[in-house]
Amino acid sequence: MEQREEPQEELSTQRIEAFSDGVFAIAITLLILEIKIPHLHEGGETRRLASALYLLWPAYGAYILSFVTVGIYWANHNFVFKLYQRTDHVFNLLNVLFLMCVSFLPFPTAVLAEYLTEPEEKHTAVSLYAFGLLLPAVAWLMMWLYASYRYRLIERRLDPGFVQLLTWQYLFSISLYLGAWLVSFWNGPISLALMIVLTLLYLLPPKKPVYRRAPSAEERMN
Amino acid sequence: MEQREEPQEELSTQRIEAFSDGVFAIAITLLILEIKIPHLHEGGETRRLASALYLLWPAYGAYILSFVTVGIYWANHNFVFKLYQRTDHVFNLLNVLFLMCVSFLPFPTAVLAEYLTEPEEKHTAVSLYAFGLLLPAVAWLMMWLYASYRYRLIERRLDPGFVQLLTWQYLFSISLYLGAWLVSFWNGPISLALMIVLTLLYLLPPKKPVYRRAPSAEERMN
Amino acid sequence: MEQREEPQEELSTQRIEAFSDGVFAIAITLLILEIKIPHLHEGGETRRLASALYLLWPAYGAYILSFVTVGIYWANHNFVFKLYQRTDHVFNLLNVLFLMCVSFLPFPTAVLAEYLTEPEEKHTAVSLYAFGLLLPAVAWLMMWLYASYRYRLIERRLDPGFVQLLTWQYLFSISLYLGAWLVSFWNGPISLALMIVLTLLYLLPPKKPVYRRAPSAEERMN
Amino acid sequence: MEQREEPQEELSTQRIEAFSDGVFAIAITLLILEIKIPHLHEGGETRRLASALYLLWPAYGAYILSFVTVGIYWANHNFVFKLYQRTDHVFNLLNVLFLMCVSFLPFPTAVLAEYLTEPEEKHTAVSLYAFGLLLPAVAWLMMWLYASYRYRLIERRLDPGFVQLLTWQYLFSISLYLGAWLVSFWNGPISLALMIVLTLLYLLPPKKPVYRRAPSAEERMN
Repeated sequence: MEQREEPQEELSTQRIEAFSDGVFAIAITLLILEIKIPHLHEGGETRRLASALYLLWPAYGAYILSFVTVGIYWANHNFVFKLYQRTDHVFNLLNVLFLMCVSFLPFPTAVLAEYLTEPEEKHTAVSLYAFGLLLPAVAWLMMWLYASYRYRLIERRLDPGFVQLLTWQYLFSISLYLGAWLVSFWNGPISLALMIVLTLLYLLPPKKPVYRRAPSAEERMN
Repeated sequence: MEQREEPQEELSTQRIEAFSDGVFAIAITLLILEIKIPHLHEGGETRRLASALYLLWPAYGAYILSFVTVGIYWANHNFVFKLYQRTDHVFNLLNVLFLMCVSFLPFPTAVLAEYLTEPEEKHTAVSLYAFGLLLPAVAWLMMWLYASYRYRLIERRLDPGFVQLLTWQYLFSISLYLGAWLVSFWNGPISLALMIVLTLLYLLPPKKPVYRRAPSAEERMN
Repeated sequence: MEQREEPQEELSTQRIEAFSDGVFAIAITLLILEIKIPHLHEGGETRRLASALYLLWPAYGAYILSFVTVGIYWANHNFVFKLYQRTDHVFNLLNVLFLMCVSFLPFPTAVLAEYLTEPEEKHTAVSLYAFGLLLPAVAWLMMWLYASYRYRLIERRLDPGFVQLLTWQYLFSISLYLGAWLVSFWNGPISLALMIVLTLLYLLPPKKPVYRRAPSAEERMN
Repeated sequence: MEQREEPQEELSTQRIEAFSDGVFAIAITLLILEIKIPHLHEGGETRRLASALYLLWPAYGAYILSFVTVGIYWANHNFVFKLYQRTDHVFNLLNVLFLMCVSFLPFPTAVLAEYLTEPEEKHTAVSLYAFGLLLPAVAWLMMWLYASYRYRLIERRLDPGFVQLLTWQYLFSISLYLGAWLVSFWNGPISLALMIVLTLLYLLPPKKPVYRRAPSAEERMN
């Protein structure tokens, strides 16, 4: 009976991972709902189905880009939660904030798909989309900073240099998304190209965790 | 083979938690579907995309408020199911009732987003939303009262004072939601402000469970 | 290494349960999407939001009835999968068939909500709904008959009388749903009332499994 | 503490399976959303509900075909992940690609349901659907080739002949889907019939894994 007390004291990350996986899976699958069936008789004009399906190319592109983005976040969430060893109330809430940003993505995706081909509105659509990509990146960093600060929630054996490296990496990717967002006010296509390149970069495997050689004397005391 | 008999006798809470997490994850992710892509050419008028996106602010606000609310319910469900040690048929049904109330939330959220800016209808929209928040709070209390009555389903080692405290806390939050609902008939914005404050209060961490020092003689008998 | 061979030979029911729980959770949560936000200015008429929300009562009723139905199926699936000890390819496919019938329910629910108040069409809507309830009941029986035939997939220790009882119970509930369906062609409201009563009956707890006293000599041989 | 290092080095397939199951469950359940409630007063004509429901038969057919297809993919994913023993970053991304193709299926399904009865457009709808079935089959093969190449991720004890057999089987099914796609440009109904037959073939149970008798001397060295 004594053993059952521990999980009460310190929350494990198991249920938070299952819940997050659920939200990732749903957000990623809902993206398809934003590709609407084309109507062939609209506004007096009649169009063939083949040409109507072809004209949906921005919707297919936005679907692929957002799907890959959420997929990468899932893979990284998977990776980083191997470093998080426990959770607390604040971290739970930060994770909810992160999931809120990920779940928001279908909306900018649908706006991008709808307005990418309207010359006057496409830069606004790209701006919203870049902002939609920036939001989860910021929430992601907040989670990492909260958990890694003084090894609050992450594994103690992690090498300080490795922890520092991840911090820089997350800061760097935010600055790139921020850059893509700012560029969008000036030139939509370049901003979009930047986001595609960024996504391709994220396809590279995450750096393997580095651990300290041996527990320090200090840690032995604990 | 004898060991396999036990899980038949007394249902564990594992599958009920997985199912609830699924419903939470879906209800929270479906909220984004209620933010519809703006149409720029409606009713003869033409609007720029940037201004149309700006005019959706009640939708963004309702999305955030409902997402945080469901997220908090998930965190609390997570917390309270560490106190529930077993389940039975009635409790399963009460949990289904609770999930039905949580799953209903996207509807009042969409109505709030649509009618918050219409002066004549906004108090009705706020009323429905307050009612939508009241429903899961009532179902939550029903689950707790059923499970905690004479320690029917909760852990026996829980301190009676702590159990009593949670009962009062849940009753208190219901009375606040009820208050927000009643206020909505008289003044929409105040009711909405009350609900936001309530949600912020829920962001505070739940009180840690308190256990009895040692099992009583009576319990030892069992 | 020898131990790893077993799960390959005989599939456990773990992943089938997780997948089914996912489908249940999604089907039940999607129901809310069928309650559409009311539009106040339609067909030249203008209506107040409060009255428009009131006129949605068939949608609320259909939501509750379908939610409770799927919730009961989930609880029973939970219950009956404690009796199923293993699975095979045919059983997997029968479970997919059952889930297909459960996932279909949001459609008759939406049709019922839309046409229950149209005098000329309501019996058609009720017919479709009764048919929508009949389908999963039939698939459920097929799963049970396949699994229980000569104890193919169910626990060997189950009492034959108990197995027989469940068969009769499932046959009986199908005949009631069939009855409700046939009645719907003659009188919609009575058919609907019948379905509500049936659902209330299902709220009763399932009968506890009965096991044989001791393994028979024959079984000992195996 | 030494034991905890291993899961860091080599990713287990547990979370990838849970995530995939989530996507399968959602994609399969979303299919019902593509069957829209019929409107009886459209374009000046008035139709009875019963006849409107009858006219939706292509939607029911497409729902069943796509549901069974995704269900079979789930069962096969279930089967083949018993052969995959570990995962890596590239395999994770290939699985995301596969899930992207599966999640895309509701769109061709909806287009097929909408345009199957329009004589001039039905072959285009069938083409898109055949293409939608071809995509996940190709991604599936990519996963298999990557994982089975030199036993990179699959179980070492698997018989080489069995591995080869699966490769041929997956290549064969791609060529059949490709055939159905090509036929669709020439004759829609025959293409559709081909896809239905293919789906029925997939209902056959997958071949049981064959293992080598004993580990080879070479393997013993490792």
